[in-house]
Amino acid sequence: MRELFHADLKSLGDQLTEIAGLVREAMDKSRVSFEEADVELAETVITNDARIDYLQTALDEKAIELLALQGPVAADLRTVVAALRMSSSLERMGDLARHIAQLARRRFPDLVVPPSAREDFRQMAEHAVEVAAEVEHLLATHDLKHASAIVKLNATINELHAKNFTSVADPSWDASAATTADVTLASRFLERFADHGVSVARKVTYLATGEWEPIIAID
Amino acid sequence: MRELFHADLKSLGDQLTEIAGLVREAMDKSRVSFEEADVELAETVITNDARIDYLQTALDEKAIELLALQGPVAADLRTVVAALRMSSSLERMGDLARHIAQLARRRFPDLVVPPSAREDFRQMAEHAVEVAAEVEHLLATHDLKHASAIVKLNATINELHAKNFTSVADPSWDASAATTADVTLASRFLERFADHGVSVARKVTYLATGEWEPIIAID
Repeated sequence: MRELFHADLKSLGDQLTEIAGLVREAMDKSRVSFEEADVELAETVITNDARIDYLQTALDEKAIELLALQGPVAADLRTVVAALRMSSSLERMGDLARHIAQLARRRFPDLVVPPSAREDFRQMAEHAVEVAAEVEHLLATHDLKHASAIVKLNATINELHAKNFTSVADPSWDASAATTADVTLASRFLERFADHGVSVARKVTYLATGEWEPIIAID
Repeated sequence: MRELFHADLKSLGDQLTEIAGLVREAMDKSRVSFEEADVELAETVITNDARIDYLQTALDEKAIELLALQGPVAADLRTVVAALRMSSSLERMGDLARHIAQLARRRFPDLVVPPSAREDFRQMAEHAVEVAAEVEHLLATHDLKHASAIVKLNATINELHAKNFTSVADPSWDASAATTADVTLASRFLERFADHGVSVARKVTYLATGEWEPIIAID
């Protein structure tokens, strides 16, 4: 019974890792569609998001079935509850990648971001893809060095998010109001994407150490 | 044992209702602080959000304890898992109310929204408070008329959110880029606040009927 249960827990972990891989792919494609006004790639991300949603629902059903059939307690119970929460974070990350692709599609054939802010957005989106890659590695290996990496990437993304607001408020900013609105949303989406990565990092850390705070101290 | 368990389930429901009441209060104060540049009220919302976070953690611990000690199955299990998810939605609603208050504080003594868009924001924020009030009633009574009301309010909020983007893109929009960024974020925060209300409405409906979709059809 215990062995079966641990095989089930491992299968939950594998499902989380699979979803994280799809989220990484989605963010990577979103990034390219956003930077290159590639509307077909944007469409791919938008369409594929349904697959992430489906896998999240399947994982949640599996987790609830585990709770019902096995009645886990202590650390095992917390692992299953954490899996439910992490699947929800991953699903939101998929939504946010889709939102970036939707902005790219809405402005096609133009680019969303005006030239003066493109380098900051390029870095921000690249870091967002790295967050997703680190989340995938963290879920696959439980090596907490990936949790630290996520927290560091998030700090950099937060700095770039703040910088975007400074750029918009600068007298030299001459983009249209519609562009300003899109840039504001894009920056917010990338910042939230990283926040959800941190949320997963904190849960894995908590499961491994019983402590909520250690990875925050690195920040 | 069963009776004790049902008393515990009821206590979870009471805790959710209590948090929803605090979220409603937070959104109501946020709304006033935002419309009247009342920085003291904004500070109150920002400070009080910690209480919502604390109650969410307490509820989650209680739910996990219930899972461990009682090993519920079937409908009871789904109720506990739904409570975990609803507490997470309510906590996010508290965060979003806080974000609105933070925008008010950042622009004090100015108002965030320029005169031409104030009426739309007034309606949007009023509807957001109503969403929170309906969530509170829904959690207290499980009467699905409140779920329908939330879905209708959300549809109106979505229309106002879209209208804000049209206003910003209009040639007559002459606000600064910093104001445009703030208005974009404020609109997004209110729209997300309502989305989380719908998420709670769907979960309560699902628990009552076993169906995910009915309240969506009203939309």
